[in-house]
Amino acid sequence: MNGDQMIILKLGGSILTKKDLKDPEVNYTNLNRIANEIKTVLDNKSNNSELSEPGLIIIHGAGSYGHPPAKKYNIGEAFTEEQYPKKRIGFSKTQNCVKKLNTLICDVFIDHEIPCVSVQASSFITTKNRRINRFNLDLIEKYLNEGFIPVIYGDVVLDDDLKIAVLSGDQILQFIAKNLKIKTSKTNNLQSKKEVILGTDVAGVFTKNPKKYDDGEHIPKLSSLEKIERFDSTTNIDVTGGMIGKIKELLELADIGIESKIIDANEPNAILNALEGKNVRGTIIKRDN
Amino acid sequence: MNGDQMIILKLGGSILTKKDLKDPEVNYTNLNRIANEIKTVLDNKSNNSELSEPGLIIIHGAGSYGHPPAKKYNIGEAFTEEQYPKKRIGFSKTQNCVKKLNTLICDVFIDHEIPCVSVQASSFITTKNRRINRFNLDLIEKYLNEGFIPVIYGDVVLDDDLKIAVLSGDQILQFIAKNLKIKTSKTNNLQSKKEVILGTDVAGVFTKNPKKYDDGEHIPKLSSLEKIERFDSTTNIDVTGGMIGKIKELLELADIGIESKIIDANEPNAILNALEGKNVRGTIIKRDN
Repeated sequence: MNGDQMIILKLGGSILTKKDLKDPEVNYTNLNRIANEIKTVLDNKSNNSELSEPGLIIIHGAGSYGHPPAKKYNIGEAFTEEQYPKKRIGFSKTQNCVKKLNTLICDVFIDHEIPCVSVQASSFITTKNRRINRFNLDLIEKYLNEGFIPVIYGDVVLDDDLKIAVLSGDQILQFIAKNLKIKTSKTNNLQSKKEVILGTDVAGVFTKNPKKYDDGEHIPKLSSLEKIERFDSTTNIDVTGGMIGKIKELLELADIGIESKIIDANEPNAILNALEGKNVRGTIIKRDN
Repeated sequence: MNGDQMIILKLGGSILTKKDLKDPEVNYTNLNRIANEIKTVLDNKSNNSELSEPGLIIIHGAGSYGHPPAKKYNIGEAFTEEQYPKKRIGFSKTQNCVKKLNTLICDVFIDHEIPCVSVQASSFITTKNRRINRFNLDLIEKYLNEGFIPVIYGDVVLDDDLKIAVLSGDQILQFIAKNLKIKTSKTNNLQSKKEVILGTDVAGVFTKNPKKYDDGEHIPKLSSLEKIERFDSTTNIDVTGGMIGKIKELLELADIGIESKIIDANEPNAILNALEGKNVRGTIIKRDN
Protein backbone atom coordinates (compact mmCIF):
# COMPACT_ATOMS: atom_id res chain seq x y z
CA MET A 1 0.00 0.00 0.00
CA ASN A 2 1.54 3.25 -1.11
CA GLY A 3 0.10 6.72 -0.76
CA ASP A 4 -3.56 6.83 -1.71
CA GLN A 5 -3.69 3.39 -3.26
CA MET A 6 -6.63 1.17 -2.35
CA ILE A 7 -6.10 -2.52 -1.77
CA ILE A 8 -8.91 -5.03 -1.55
CA LEU A 9 -7.69 -8.10 0.27
CA LYS A 10 -9.70 -11.30 0.18
CA LEU A 11 -8.90 -13.93 2.80
CA GLY A 12 -10.32 -17.29 1.81
CA GLY A 13 -12.40 -19.29 4.25
CA SER A 14 -10.00 -22.19 3.75
CA ILE A 15 -7.20 -20.06 5.23
CA LEU A 16 -9.13 -18.80 8.24
CA THR A 17 -11.05 -21.92 9.27
CA LYS A 18 -10.30 -25.60 9.74
CA LYS A 19 -11.98 -28.10 7.48
CA ASP A 20 -13.64 -31.45 8.09
CA LEU A 21 -14.16 -31.07 11.85
CA LYS A 22 -17.47 -31.88 13.54
CA ASP A 23 -17.91 -28.26 14.59
CA PRO A 24 -16.50 -25.24 12.75
CA GLU A 25 -13.22 -23.92 14.11
CA VAL A 26 -11.06 -20.89 13.41
CA ASN A 27 -7.48 -21.50 12.24
CA TYR A 28 -5.92 -19.21 14.85
CA THR A 29 -2.37 -20.00 13.73
CA ASN A 30 -3.06 -18.51 10.31
CA LEU A 31 -5.34 -15.77 11.59
CA ASN A 32 -2.91 -14.45 14.21
CA ARG A 33 -0.02 -14.55 11.74
CA ILE A 34 -2.00 -12.72 9.04
CA ALA A 35 -3.31 -10.12 11.53
CA ASN A 36 0.30 -9.53 12.54
CA GLU A 37 1.35 -9.11 8.90
CA ILE A 38 -1.48 -6.62 8.22
CA LYS A 39 -0.60 -4.65 11.36
CA THR A 40 3.05 -4.53 10.27
CA VAL A 41 2.06 -3.10 6.89
CA LEU A 42 -0.21 -0.47 8.52
CA ASP A 43 2.59 0.55 10.90
CA ASN A 44 5.18 0.74 8.10
CA LYS A 45 2.77 2.81 6.06
CA SER A 46 1.95 5.30 8.79
CA ASN A 47 5.68 5.72 9.48
CA ASN A 48 6.56 6.25 5.83
CA SER A 49 3.70 8.19 4.38
CA GLU A 50 2.03 11.49 5.01
CA LEU A 51 -1.31 9.78 4.58
CA SER A 52 -2.43 8.12 7.76
CA GLU A 53 -5.62 6.66 6.29
CA PRO A 54 -5.12 2.98 5.58
CA GLY A 55 -6.57 2.28 2.14
CA LEU A 56 -7.51 -1.31 2.81
CA ILE A 57 -10.71 -3.33 2.65
CA ILE A 58 -10.73 -6.94 3.86
CA ILE A 59 -13.22 -9.50 2.59
CA HIS A 60 -13.32 -12.95 4.10
CA GLY A 61 -14.99 -16.16 3.07
CA ALA A 62 -17.33 -18.30 5.15
CA GLY A 63 -15.21 -21.44 5.30
CA SER A 64 -16.38 -24.21 7.60
CA TYR A 65 -18.78 -21.75 9.33
CA GLY A 66 -20.90 -20.93 6.31
CA HIS A 67 -20.66 -23.74 3.81
CA PRO A 68 -22.14 -26.59 5.89
CA PRO A 69 -25.44 -24.81 6.80
CA ALA A 70 -25.73 -23.24 3.32
CA LYS A 71 -25.31 -26.70 1.82
CA LYS A 72 -27.57 -28.46 4.34
CA TYR A 73 -30.47 -26.11 3.54
CA ASN A 74 -29.57 -25.72 -0.16
CA ILE A 75 -29.67 -21.93 0.13
CA GLY A 76 -29.99 -20.46 -3.34
CA GLU A 77 -31.68 -23.52 -4.87
CA ALA A 78 -35.32 -23.48 -5.98
CA PHE A 79 -37.91 -24.56 -3.41
CA THR A 80 -41.68 -24.99 -3.00
CA GLU A 81 -43.86 -22.82 -0.78
CA GLU A 82 -44.13 -25.69 1.69
CA GLN A 83 -40.36 -25.90 1.98
CA TYR A 84 -40.01 -22.16 2.63
CA PRO A 85 -40.22 -22.16 6.47
CA LYS A 86 -37.35 -24.66 6.63
CA LYS A 87 -35.37 -22.72 4.05
CA ARG A 88 -35.93 -19.53 6.04
CA ILE A 89 -34.54 -21.08 9.21
CA GLY A 90 -31.58 -22.23 7.09
CA PHE A 91 -31.05 -18.60 6.12
CA SER A 92 -31.18 -17.56 9.80
CA LYS A 93 -28.67 -20.25 10.76
CA THR A 94 -26.26 -19.54 7.93
CA GLN A 95 -26.38 -15.79 8.58
CA ASN A 96 -25.65 -16.32 12.25
CA CYS A 97 -22.78 -18.76 11.60
CA VAL A 98 -20.92 -16.44 9.22
CA LYS A 99 -21.52 -13.54 11.61
CA LYS A 100 -19.95 -15.63 14.36
CA LEU A 101 -16.87 -16.26 12.22
CA ASN A 102 -16.66 -12.54 11.42
CA THR A 103 -16.82 -11.71 15.13
CA LEU A 104 -14.00 -14.13 15.95
CA ILE A 105 -11.86 -12.72 13.12
CA CYS A 106 -12.50 -9.12 14.23
CA ASP A 107 -11.58 -10.12 17.81
CA VAL A 108 -8.11 -11.07 16.60
CA PHE A 109 -7.76 -7.99 14.38
CA ILE A 110 -8.71 -5.77 17.33
CA ASP A 111 -6.21 -7.60 19.59
CA HIS A 112 -3.61 -6.53 16.99
CA GLU A 113 -4.89 -2.92 17.16
CA ILE A 114 -6.23 -3.04 13.60
CA PRO A 115 -9.09 -0.47 13.41
CA CYS A 116 -11.53 -2.79 11.69
CA VAL A 117 -15.23 -2.23 11.22
CA SER A 118 -17.49 -5.14 10.44
CA VAL A 119 -19.90 -4.69 7.53
CA GLN A 120 -22.78 -7.16 7.23
CA ALA A 121 -23.89 -7.74 3.63
CA SER A 122 -27.34 -9.04 4.60
CA SER A 123 -28.08 -5.74 6.38
CA PHE A 124 -28.08 -3.69 3.18
CA ILE A 125 -27.28 -5.73 0.04
CA THR A 126 -29.72 -7.71 -2.11
CA THR A 127 -29.28 -9.79 -5.26
CA LYS A 128 -31.35 -10.63 -8.32
CA ASN A 129 -30.84 -14.14 -9.63
CA ARG A 130 -27.73 -14.42 -7.43
CA ARG A 131 -26.04 -11.22 -8.68
CA ILE A 132 -25.85 -8.02 -6.62
CA ASN A 133 -28.53 -5.50 -7.59
CA ARG A 134 -28.50 -3.22 -4.52
CA PHE A 135 -25.28 -2.29 -2.76
CA ASN A 136 -24.85 1.26 -1.54
CA LEU A 137 -21.12 1.85 -1.05
CA ASP A 138 -21.49 5.25 0.65
CA LEU A 139 -20.94 4.00 4.18
CA ILE A 140 -17.91 1.88 3.25
CA GLU A 141 -16.41 5.00 1.66
CA LYS A 142 -17.14 6.95 4.85
CA TYR A 143 -15.46 4.32 7.01
CA LEU A 144 -12.40 4.37 4.74
CA ASN A 145 -12.27 8.16 4.95
CA GLU A 146 -12.29 7.91 8.74
CA GLY A 147 -9.36 5.48 8.65
CA PHE A 148 -11.29 2.31 9.39
CA ILE A 149 -10.61 -1.00 7.66
CA PRO A 150 -13.98 -2.40 6.58
CA VAL A 151 -14.26 -6.16 7.01
CA ILE A 152 -17.03 -7.63 4.88
CA TYR A 153 -17.79 -11.30 4.33
CA GLY A 154 -19.64 -13.91 2.34
CA ASP A 155 -23.25 -14.01 3.56
CA VAL A 156 -26.83 -14.94 2.75
CA VAL A 157 -29.03 -12.17 1.32
CA LEU A 158 -32.55 -11.56 0.02
CA ASP A 159 -32.85 -12.20 -3.71
CA ASP A 160 -35.49 -10.53 -5.90
CA ASP A 161 -36.01 -13.70 -7.96
CA LEU A 162 -35.11 -16.56 -5.61
CA LYS A 163 -36.23 -15.01 -2.28
CA ILE A 164 -32.89 -15.91 -0.69
CA ALA A 165 -29.40 -16.51 -2.06
CA VAL A 166 -25.79 -17.06 -1.07
CA LEU A 167 -23.59 -14.04 -1.74
CA SER A 168 -19.96 -15.09 -2.06
CA GLY A 169 -17.05 -13.03 -0.83
CA ASP A 170 -15.70 -13.19 -4.39
CA GLN A 171 -18.74 -11.43 -5.81
CA ILE A 172 -18.58 -8.79 -3.05
CA LEU A 173 -14.92 -8.28 -3.90
CA GLN A 174 -15.61 -7.81 -7.58
CA PHE A 175 -18.47 -5.37 -6.93
CA ILE A 176 -16.43 -3.26 -4.52
CA ALA A 177 -13.39 -3.23 -6.80
CA LYS A 178 -15.57 -2.10 -9.70
CA ASN A 179 -17.73 0.46 -7.97
CA LEU A 180 -15.95 1.96 -4.98
CA LYS A 181 -15.02 5.58 -5.45
CA ILE A 182 -11.79 6.47 -3.73
CA LYS A 183 -10.51 9.91 -3.03
CA THR A 184 -7.06 10.35 -4.52
CA SER A 185 -4.92 13.39 -4.09
CA LYS A 186 -2.61 12.75 -7.02
CA THR A 187 -4.72 11.48 -9.89
CA ASN A 188 -8.20 11.40 -11.31
CA ASN A 189 -7.74 7.90 -12.63
CA LEU A 190 -9.51 6.08 -9.85
CA GLN A 191 -9.51 2.56 -11.25
CA SER A 192 -5.76 2.32 -11.78
CA LYS A 193 -5.20 2.94 -8.10
CA LYS A 194 -7.09 -0.14 -7.00
CA GLU A 195 -5.51 -3.52 -6.55
CA VAL A 196 -6.91 -6.89 -5.54
CA ILE A 197 -5.11 -9.58 -3.56
CA LEU A 198 -6.64 -12.99 -2.99
CA GLY A 199 -5.11 -14.97 -0.16
CA THR A 200 -6.08 -18.58 -0.85
CA ASP A 201 -4.57 -21.93 0.14
CA VAL A 202 -2.59 -22.32 -3.10
CA ALA A 203 -0.17 -20.02 -4.90
CA GLY A 204 -2.65 -19.29 -7.68
CA VAL A 205 -3.48 -21.38 -10.70
CA PHE A 206 -1.84 -24.67 -11.66
CA THR A 207 -2.52 -26.98 -14.59
CA LYS A 208 -3.39 -29.65 -12.02
CA ASN A 209 -4.65 -29.27 -8.43
CA PRO A 210 -1.40 -28.79 -6.45
CA LYS A 211 -2.93 -30.46 -3.39
CA LYS A 212 -3.31 -33.71 -5.30
CA TYR A 213 -0.68 -33.70 -7.99
CA ASP A 214 3.00 -32.84 -7.91
CA ASP A 215 3.46 -32.48 -11.65
CA GLY A 216 1.11 -29.53 -12.23
CA GLU A 217 2.58 -26.50 -13.93
CA HIS A 218 2.27 -23.13 -12.17
CA ILE A 219 0.67 -20.34 -14.21
CA PRO A 220 2.23 -17.00 -13.23
CA LYS A 221 -0.05 -14.86 -15.39
CA LEU A 222 -3.55 -15.28 -16.76
CA SER A 223 -5.22 -13.00 -19.27
CA SER A 224 -8.16 -15.13 -20.39
CA LEU A 225 -10.21 -18.16 -19.42
CA GLU A 226 -9.18 -20.07 -22.54
CA LYS A 227 -6.01 -21.46 -21.08
CA ILE A 228 -7.54 -22.90 -17.93
CA GLU A 229 -10.75 -24.24 -19.41
CA ARG A 230 -8.77 -27.27 -20.53
CA PHE A 231 -7.82 -28.35 -16.99
CA ASP A 232 -10.91 -27.04 -15.20
CA SER A 233 -11.86 -30.26 -13.41
CA THR A 234 -8.56 -30.75 -11.63
CA THR A 235 -8.42 -27.38 -9.88
CA ASN A 236 -9.64 -26.79 -6.35
CA ILE A 237 -13.34 -26.07 -5.94
CA ASP A 238 -15.60 -24.80 -3.16
CA VAL A 239 -19.34 -24.29 -2.83
CA THR A 240 -19.37 -20.70 -4.03
CA GLY A 241 -17.63 -21.20 -7.33
CA GLY A 242 -14.10 -22.46 -6.89
CA MET A 243 -11.07 -21.22 -8.75
CA ILE A 244 -12.81 -20.89 -12.12
CA GLY A 245 -15.52 -18.74 -10.51
CA LYS A 246 -12.89 -16.55 -8.87
CA ILE A 247 -11.02 -16.07 -12.12
CA LYS A 248 -14.16 -15.10 -14.01
CA GLU A 249 -14.82 -12.34 -11.44
CA LEU A 250 -11.19 -11.22 -11.64
CA LEU A 251 -11.08 -11.13 -15.45
CA GLU A 252 -14.02 -8.71 -15.35
CA LEU A 253 -11.87 -6.49 -13.16
CA ALA A 254 -8.91 -6.92 -15.52
CA ASP A 255 -11.15 -5.57 -18.29
CA ILE A 256 -11.42 -2.26 -16.49
CA GLY A 257 -7.73 -2.16 -15.62
CA ILE A 258 -7.75 -3.60 -12.09
CA GLU A 259 -5.02 -6.14 -11.54
CA SER A 260 -5.47 -9.10 -9.18
CA LYS A 261 -3.05 -11.52 -7.67
CA ILE A 262 -3.86 -14.93 -6.21
CA ILE A 263 -1.34 -15.94 -3.58
CA ASP A 264 -0.85 -18.65 -0.97
CA ALA A 265 -1.80 -17.10 2.38
CA ASN A 266 -0.48 -20.17 4.22
CA GLU A 267 2.97 -18.93 3.27
CA PRO A 268 4.41 -16.68 6.02
CA ASN A 269 4.78 -13.06 4.85
CA ALA A 270 3.01 -13.66 1.54
CA ILE A 271 0.18 -11.28 2.59
CA LEU A 272 2.65 -8.79 4.05
CA ASN A 273 4.80 -8.70 0.91
CA ALA A 274 1.82 -8.58 -1.43
CA LEU A 275 0.33 -5.64 0.52
CA GLU A 276 3.67 -3.83 0.29
CA GLY A 277 3.88 -4.40 -3.46
CA LYS A 278 6.83 -6.78 -3.20
CA ASN A 279 7.27 -9.87 -5.30
CA VAL A 280 5.24 -12.89 -4.15
CA ARG A 281 4.75 -16.19 -5.93
CA GLY A 282 1.23 -16.38 -7.32
CA THR A 283 -0.93 -15.89 -10.38
CA ILE A 284 -1.52 -12.39 -11.70
CA ILE A 285 -4.82 -11.80 -13.51
CA LYS A 286 -4.53 -9.01 -16.03
CA ARG A 287 -5.45 -8.46 -19.64
CA ASP A 288 -2.69 -8.29 -22.25
CA ASN A 289 -2.00 -4.76 -23.31
CA MET B 1 -50.23 -9.85 17.45
CA ASN B 2 -53.44 -9.96 15.48
CA GLY B 3 -53.86 -9.98 11.72
CA ASP B 4 -51.64 -7.45 10.03
CA GLN B 5 -50.62 -5.63 13.19
CA MET B 6 -46.96 -4.78 13.63
CA ILE B 7 -45.33 -5.10 17.02
CA ILE B 8 -41.94 -3.66 17.85
CA LEU B 9 -40.54 -5.45 20.86
CA LYS B 10 -37.57 -4.05 22.72
CA LEU B 11 -35.68 -6.39 25.02
CA GLY B 12 -33.49 -4.44 27.41
CA GLY B 13 -29.84 -5.34 27.84
CA SER B 14 -30.48 -5.69 31.57
CA ILE B 15 -32.88 -8.56 30.83
CA LEU B 16 -30.62 -10.43 28.42
CA THR B 17 -27.23 -10.03 30.08
CA LYS B 18 -25.81 -10.35 33.57
CA LYS B 19 -24.43 -7.28 35.27
CA ASP B 20 -21.32 -6.62 37.32
CA LEU B 21 -19.35 -9.69 36.24
CA LYS B 22 -15.72 -9.50 35.16
CA ASP B 23 -16.61 -10.64 31.64
CA PRO B 24 -19.96 -10.07 29.95
CA GLU B 25 -22.38 -12.97 30.15
CA VAL B 26 -25.76 -13.75 28.64
CA ASN B 27 -28.67 -14.37 31.00
CA TYR B 28 -29.70 -17.65 29.37
CA THR B 29 -32.49 -18.28 31.89
CA ASN B 30 -34.29 -15.15 30.75
CA LEU B 31 -33.30 -15.50 27.09
CA ASN B 32 -34.51 -19.10 26.74
CA ARG B 33 -37.75 -18.32 28.53
CA ILE B 34 -38.42 -15.25 26.36
CA ALA B 35 -37.51 -17.12 23.15
CA ASN B 36 -40.00 -19.77 24.18
CA GLU B 37 -42.70 -17.15 24.81
CA ILE B 38 -42.11 -15.53 21.42
CA LYS B 39 -42.22 -18.91 19.68
CA THR B 40 -45.51 -19.71 21.43
CA VAL B 41 -47.02 -16.45 20.19
CA LEU B 42 -45.84 -17.11 16.62
CA ASP B 43 -47.27 -20.63 16.70
CA ASN B 44 -50.60 -19.45 18.14
CA LYS B 45 -50.74 -16.77 15.49
CA SER B 46 -50.04 -19.05 12.55
CA ASN B 47 -52.69 -21.46 13.82
CA ASN B 48 -55.32 -18.76 14.30
CA SER B 49 -54.78 -16.34 11.47
CA GLU B 50 -54.85 -16.47 7.73
CA LEU B 51 -51.75 -14.32 7.69
CA SER B 52 -48.64 -16.38 8.16
CA GLU B 53 -46.27 -13.40 8.14
CA PRO B 54 -45.21 -12.60 11.69
CA GLY B 55 -45.41 -8.84 12.08
CA LEU B 56 -42.70 -8.56 14.68
CA ILE B 57 -39.43 -6.67 14.96
CA ILE B 58 -37.14 -7.27 17.91
CA ILE B 59 -34.68 -4.68 19.16
CA HIS B 60 -32.25 -5.53 21.90
CA GLY B 61 -29.97 -3.46 24.06
CA ALA B 62 -26.23 -3.90 24.53
CA GLY B 63 -26.24 -4.65 28.25
CA SER B 64 -22.97 -5.76 29.80
CA TYR B 65 -21.54 -6.41 26.28
CA GLY B 66 -21.78 -2.88 24.98
CA HIS B 67 -21.81 -0.47 27.90
CA PRO B 68 -18.36 -1.24 29.40
CA PRO B 69 -16.33 -0.68 26.17
CA ALA B 70 -18.50 2.30 25.13
CA LYS B 71 -17.88 3.83 28.55
CA LYS B 72 -14.18 2.92 28.68
CA TYR B 73 -13.51 4.71 25.38
CA ASN B 74 -16.11 7.46 25.96
CA ILE B 75 -17.70 6.81 22.58
CA GLY B 76 -19.79 9.80 21.60
CA GLU B 77 -17.81 12.30 23.70
CA ALA B 78 -15.63 14.99 22.10
CA PHE B 79 -11.96 14.13 21.47
CA THR B 80 -8.78 15.60 20.01
CA GLU B 81 -7.15 14.44 16.79
CA GLU B 82 -4.43 12.76 18.82
CA GLN B 83 -7.00 10.75 20.75
CA TYR B 84 -8.73 9.57 17.58
CA PRO B 85 -6.77 6.32 16.95
CA LYS B 86 -7.62 5.10 20.45
CA LYS B 87 -11.24 6.18 20.05
CA ARG B 88 -11.40 4.33 16.74
CA ILE B 89 -10.21 1.08 18.31
CA GLY B 90 -12.85 1.66 20.99
CA PHE B 91 -15.43 1.82 18.21
CA SER B 92 -14.10 -1.45 16.73
CA LYS B 93 -14.23 -3.15 20.13
CA THR B 94 -17.70 -1.92 21.03
CA GLN B 95 -19.08 -2.87 17.62
CA ASN B 96 -17.64 -6.37 17.93
CA CYS B 97 -18.92 -6.86 21.50
CA VAL B 98 -22.51 -5.95 20.68
CA LYS B 99 -22.33 -8.10 17.54
CA LYS B 100 -21.21 -10.99 19.73
CA LEU B 101 -24.21 -10.52 22.02
CA ASN B 102 -26.51 -10.37 18.99
CA THR B 103 -25.04 -13.63 17.67
CA LEU B 104 -25.60 -15.39 21.00
CA ILE B 105 -29.18 -14.12 21.16
CA CYS B 106 -29.91 -15.21 17.57
CA ASP B 107 -28.42 -18.65 18.39
CA VAL B 108 -31.11 -19.13 21.03
CA PHE B 109 -33.89 -17.74 18.81
CA ILE B 110 -32.84 -20.12 16.02
CA ASP B 111 -32.77 -23.05 18.48
CA HIS B 112 -36.42 -22.16 19.13
CA GLU B 113 -37.12 -22.13 15.36
CA ILE B 114 -37.73 -18.38 15.32
CA PRO B 115 -36.92 -17.16 11.76
CA CYS B 116 -34.82 -14.22 12.86
CA VAL B 117 -32.56 -12.12 10.70
CA SER B 118 -29.88 -10.00 12.28
CA VAL B 119 -29.66 -6.38 11.14
CA GLN B 120 -26.49 -4.45 11.98
CA ALA B 121 -27.08 -0.72 12.46
CA SER B 122 -23.44 0.24 11.84
CA SER B 123 -23.62 -1.34 8.36
CA PHE B 124 -26.11 1.19 7.01
CA ILE B 125 -27.20 3.78 9.59
CA THR B 126 -25.47 7.05 10.47
CA THR B 127 -26.29 9.83 12.93
CA LYS B 128 -25.80 13.59 13.10
CA ASN B 129 -25.13 14.91 16.58
CA ARG B 130 -26.26 11.53 17.99
CA ARG B 131 -29.62 11.45 16.15
CA ILE B 132 -30.32 9.16 13.18
CA ASN B 133 -29.99 11.00 9.86
CA ARG B 134 -29.65 8.03 7.45
CA PHE B 135 -31.64 4.84 7.93
CA ASN B 136 -33.08 3.16 4.86
CA LEU B 137 -35.89 0.89 6.04
CA ASP B 138 -36.46 -0.83 2.66
CA LEU B 139 -34.60 -4.02 3.54
CA ILE B 140 -36.27 -4.40 6.94
CA GLU B 141 -39.63 -4.09 5.15
CA LYS B 142 -38.51 -6.76 2.66
CA TYR B 143 -37.47 -9.12 5.45
CA LEU B 144 -40.85 -8.61 7.15
CA ASN B 145 -42.66 -9.31 3.89
CA GLU B 146 -40.73 -12.58 3.58
CA GLY B 147 -41.81 -13.59 7.09
CA PHE B 148 -38.51 -12.94 8.85
CA ILE B 149 -38.25 -11.36 12.28
CA PRO B 150 -35.60 -8.64 12.07
CA VAL B 151 -33.39 -8.43 15.16
CA ILE B 152 -31.63 -5.09 15.42
CA TYR B 153 -29.61 -3.81 18.33
CA GLY B 154 -27.91 -0.87 20.01
CA ASP B 155 -24.61 -0.21 18.23
CA VAL B 156 -21.90 2.32 17.46
CA VAL B 157 -22.25 4.28 14.22
CA LEU B 158 -20.54 7.00 12.20
CA ASP B 159 -21.77 10.47 13.13
CA ASP B 160 -21.62 13.44 10.73
CA ASP B 161 -20.72 15.86 13.53
CA LEU B 162 -18.90 13.74 16.13
CA LYS B 163 -17.25 11.19 13.79
CA ILE B 164 -18.55 8.30 15.93
CA ALA B 165 -21.51 7.91 18.28
CA VAL B 166 -23.46 5.40 20.32
CA LEU B 167 -26.85 4.58 18.82
CA SER B 168 -29.19 3.26 21.49
CA GLY B 169 -31.76 0.56 20.89
CA ASP B 170 -34.36 3.02 22.16
CA GLN B 171 -33.61 5.50 19.39
CA ILE B 172 -33.68 2.71 16.79
CA LEU B 173 -37.04 1.64 18.18
CA GLN B 174 -38.47 5.11 17.94
CA PHE B 175 -37.21 5.62 14.38
CA ILE B 176 -38.59 2.30 13.17
CA ALA B 177 -41.95 2.82 14.89
CA LYS B 178 -42.23 6.25 13.27
CA ASN B 179 -41.02 5.49 9.78
CA LEU B 180 -41.63 1.84 8.93
CA LYS B 181 -44.29 1.39 6.26
CA ILE B 182 -46.31 -1.74 6.79
CA LYS B 183 -48.59 -3.36 4.32
CA THR B 184 -52.07 -3.69 5.74
CA SER B 185 -54.92 -5.43 4.07
CA LYS B 186 -57.69 -3.85 6.13
CA THR B 187 -56.85 -0.22 6.59
CA ASN B 188 -54.91 2.69 5.20
CA ASN B 189 -54.19 4.03 8.65
CA LEU B 190 -50.70 2.61 9.02
CA GLN B 191 -49.70 4.24 12.27
CA SER B 192 -52.59 2.92 14.32
CA LYS B 193 -51.57 -0.66 13.53
CA LYS B 194 -48.18 -0.34 15.20
CA GLU B 195 -47.54 -1.10 18.82
CA VAL B 196 -44.43 -0.90 20.95
CA ILE B 197 -43.56 -3.16 23.87
CA LEU B 198 -40.53 -2.52 26.06
CA GLY B 199 -39.40 -5.47 28.12
CA THR B 200 -37.28 -3.98 30.90
CA ASP B 201 -36.34 -5.13 34.39
CA VAL B 202 -39.15 -3.21 36.10
CA ALA B 203 -42.87 -3.07 35.47
CA GLY B 204 -42.70 0.44 34.05
CA VAL B 205 -42.51 3.72 35.89
CA PHE B 206 -42.62 4.18 39.65
CA THR B 207 -42.41 7.35 41.72
CA LYS B 208 -39.27 5.86 43.28
CA ASN B 209 -36.83 3.30 41.90
CA PRO B 210 -38.51 -0.03 42.74
CA LYS B 211 -35.14 -1.75 43.04
CA LYS B 212 -34.20 0.48 45.94
CA TYR B 213 -37.44 1.58 47.55
CA ASP B 214 -40.53 -0.37 48.53
CA ASP B 215 -42.80 2.62 48.94
CA GLY B 216 -42.77 3.88 45.34
CA GLU B 217 -46.11 4.29 43.62
CA HIS B 218 -46.66 2.48 40.32
CA ILE B 219 -47.75 4.69 37.42
CA PRO B 220 -50.04 2.68 35.11
CA LYS B 221 -50.39 5.36 32.45
CA LEU B 222 -48.22 8.28 31.36
CA SER B 223 -49.26 10.99 28.93
CA SER B 224 -46.59 13.63 29.54
CA LEU B 225 -43.17 14.14 31.09
CA GLU B 226 -44.52 16.61 33.62
CA LYS B 227 -45.52 13.99 36.14
CA ILE B 228 -42.20 12.17 36.25
CA GLU B 229 -39.88 15.15 36.11
CA ARG B 230 -40.44 15.56 39.81
CA PHE B 231 -38.98 12.15 40.71
CA ASP B 232 -36.42 11.94 37.91
CA SER B 233 -33.36 11.20 40.04
CA THR B 234 -34.76 8.15 41.77
CA THR B 235 -35.64 6.15 38.65
CA ASN B 236 -33.34 3.56 37.12
CA ILE B 237 -30.74 4.86 34.68
CA ASP B 238 -28.37 3.34 32.16
CA VAL B 239 -25.64 4.74 29.92
CA THR B 240 -27.91 5.39 26.93
CA GLY B 241 -30.49 7.51 28.64
CA GLY B 242 -32.33 5.59 31.33
CA MET B 243 -36.04 5.62 31.92
CA ILE B 244 -36.50 9.34 31.26
CA GLY B 245 -34.74 8.95 27.91
CA LYS B 246 -36.97 6.02 27.00
CA ILE B 247 -40.11 7.90 27.92
CA LYS B 248 -39.13 10.92 25.85
CA GLU B 249 -38.74 8.67 22.79
CA LEU B 250 -42.05 6.97 23.53
CA LEU B 251 -43.97 10.21 24.03
CA GLU B 252 -42.89 11.25 20.53
CA LEU B 253 -44.52 8.06 19.30
CA ALA B 254 -47.62 8.74 21.39
CA ASP B 255 -47.91 12.07 19.56
CA ILE B 256 -48.43 10.22 16.29
CA GLY B 257 -50.81 7.69 17.81
CA ILE B 258 -48.45 4.81 18.58
CA GLU B 259 -49.00 3.33 22.01
CA SER B 260 -46.15 1.84 24.04
CA LYS B 261 -46.10 -0.34 27.09
CA ILE B 262 -43.19 -0.80 29.49
CA ILE B 263 -43.35 -4.18 31.20
CA ASP B 264 -41.18 -6.35 33.44
CA ALA B 265 -39.64 -9.00 31.18
CA ASN B 266 -38.30 -10.86 34.22
CA GLU B 267 -41.90 -11.83 34.91
CA PRO B 268 -42.73 -15.18 33.25
CA ASN B 269 -45.28 -14.78 30.42
CA ALA B 270 -45.23 -10.97 30.56
CA ILE B 271 -43.77 -10.83 27.01
CA LEU B 272 -46.11 -13.58 25.81
CA ASN B 273 -49.22 -11.88 27.17
CA ALA B 274 -48.17 -8.44 25.98
CA LEU B 275 -47.53 -9.77 22.45
CA GLU B 276 -50.97 -11.38 22.48
CA GLY B 277 -52.63 -8.16 23.59
CA LYS B 278 -53.57 -9.49 27.01
CA ASN B 279 -53.42 -7.49 30.20
CA VAL B 280 -49.93 -7.17 31.71
CA ARG B 281 -48.84 -4.98 34.61
CA GLY B 282 -46.79 -2.08 33.29
CA THR B 283 -46.87 1.56 32.27
CA ILE B 284 -48.72 2.56 29.11
CA ILE B 285 -47.39 5.63 27.30
CA LYS B 286 -50.13 7.35 25.34
CA ARG B 287 -51.41 10.87 24.93
CA ASP B 288 -54.76 11.81 26.41
CA ASN B 289 -57.49 11.99 23.78
